[in-house]
Amino acid sequence: MQRPTPAMVFDLDGTLVDSVYQHVLAWHEALQACGIELSIWRIHRRIGMSGGLFTRAFMREMDRELDQALLDQLRLGHAAAYRRLAPQVRPLPGALPLLRHLTAIGCPWAIATSGRIETAGPILEMLEVPDGVPIITRDMVARAKPDPDLFLAAVEQLGADPLGTFVVGDSVWDMLAAGRARFLGVGLLSGGYGTEELRSSGAYRVYDDPAMLLKHLDELGLRDD
Amino acid sequence: MQRPTPAMVFDLDGTLVDSVYQHVLAWHEALQACGIELSIWRIHRRIGMSGGLFTRAFMREMDRELDQALLDQLRLGHAAAYRRLAPQVRPLPGALPLLRHLTAIGCPWAIATSGRIETAGPILEMLEVPDGVPIITRDMVARAKPDPDLFLAAVEQLGADPLGTFVVGDSVWDMLAAGRARFLGVGLLSGGYGTEELRSSGAYRVYDDPAMLLKHLDELGLRDD
Repeated sequence: MQRPTPAMVFDLDGTLVDSVYQHVLAWHEALQACGIELSIWRIHRRIGMSGGLFTRAFMREMDRELDQALLDQLRLGHAAAYRRLAPQVRPLPGALPLLRHLTAIGCPWAIATSGRIETAGPILEMLEVPDGVPIITRDMVARAKPDPDLFLAAVEQLGADPLGTFVVGDSVWDMLAAGRARFLGVGLLSGGYGTEELRSSGAYRVYDDPAMLLKHLDELGLRDD
Repeated sequence: MQRPTPAMVFDLDGTLVDSVYQHVLAWHEALQACGIELSIWRIHRRIGMSGGLFTRAFMREMDRELDQALLDQLRLGHAAAYRRLAPQVRPLPGALPLLRHLTAIGCPWAIATSGRIETAGPILEMLEVPDGVPIITRDMVARAKPDPDLFLAAVEQLGADPLGTFVVGDSVWDMLAAGRARFLGVGLLSGGYGTEELRSSGAYRVYDDPAMLLKHLDELGLRDD
């Protein structure tokens, strides 16, 4: 029996780029502008789900009717507020060296994000993602995290072996979606969740950020020989 | 032997008001303006320490020389960025009812914050803090959290029994400072830390936010009879 070749699928916000807190405050501002008062930590805990799912969850919790006009207003409000905060967004420490290293050792990798291509585009440029790397965004699949569609689409485009695939993400939704598809989830603390939150949602290993993951790739069996 | 009368000392940011994420991004902006790139989650994990201690810790970690001009520039940069974000700051759910209830049942309470009176002032107004409630700010003690000076000063002003005192806070620094003074620390998740982080820094109990604390005061022996 041949060992499966390892592959890596990365979440984007909080995993490769330091953009979670800007997204959190942008959602907070959009909700406030629609007269919805919600504690910021609760928004943080939902980030990484699809925007639609996330808004629905809040509306349900607050016993408010869902209407399409409100959902559209929230989406536009978030996009506008995020654009104002985006100039401060940077790649996380080690993100570029990690991706370059994976390319160099021939480990196939992809990016799968609950975000849309409009917001993801400038970030992919910042990460110097080479041509040919599969990029799966929200608009390409039916359901976003915690459904596993994004990760499954990435693995399919990579032609990778599901049994060798690691999903790297910063949120419990990444870990839950990874578990649904039987991928091993690797948690990073760089999105601001605690170690225990990631472990209790099924993380196989937890590291600080991409720099620490790069230093410990051998723990995942990713050798460069 | 008489039972000690319970008293409560509250942290402010993340405990009574929803201002942690704004402070985090304000520090991030100030650091970036000084050419210091630091991941946002690392700033979040240090928030609640005194600003000075916090900056010193980062400088040490990054092997950068401490100089007073840089510290001043950071402090001013943070204050300016926070002022821009402050209009979105609100009391946390249950904060006002909790404080009113404590006053009504005759439980002495105080506020002790690592912040300065300039930023704390408008927030205290928002919380409708009655005259006579002790407010201890950074500028009134020699050392801020994780040193227990702020909490000790509050208890002294209250004339409360240290053995009956609960410290309510959202950060590990609150719990560590409470432990140093042998107060029981009550952790709130509303600052964005995980349950396990608060427990492992000594929290006696952990609740979601002031609203949930109010609902469970009897667990702390705070009866209204």
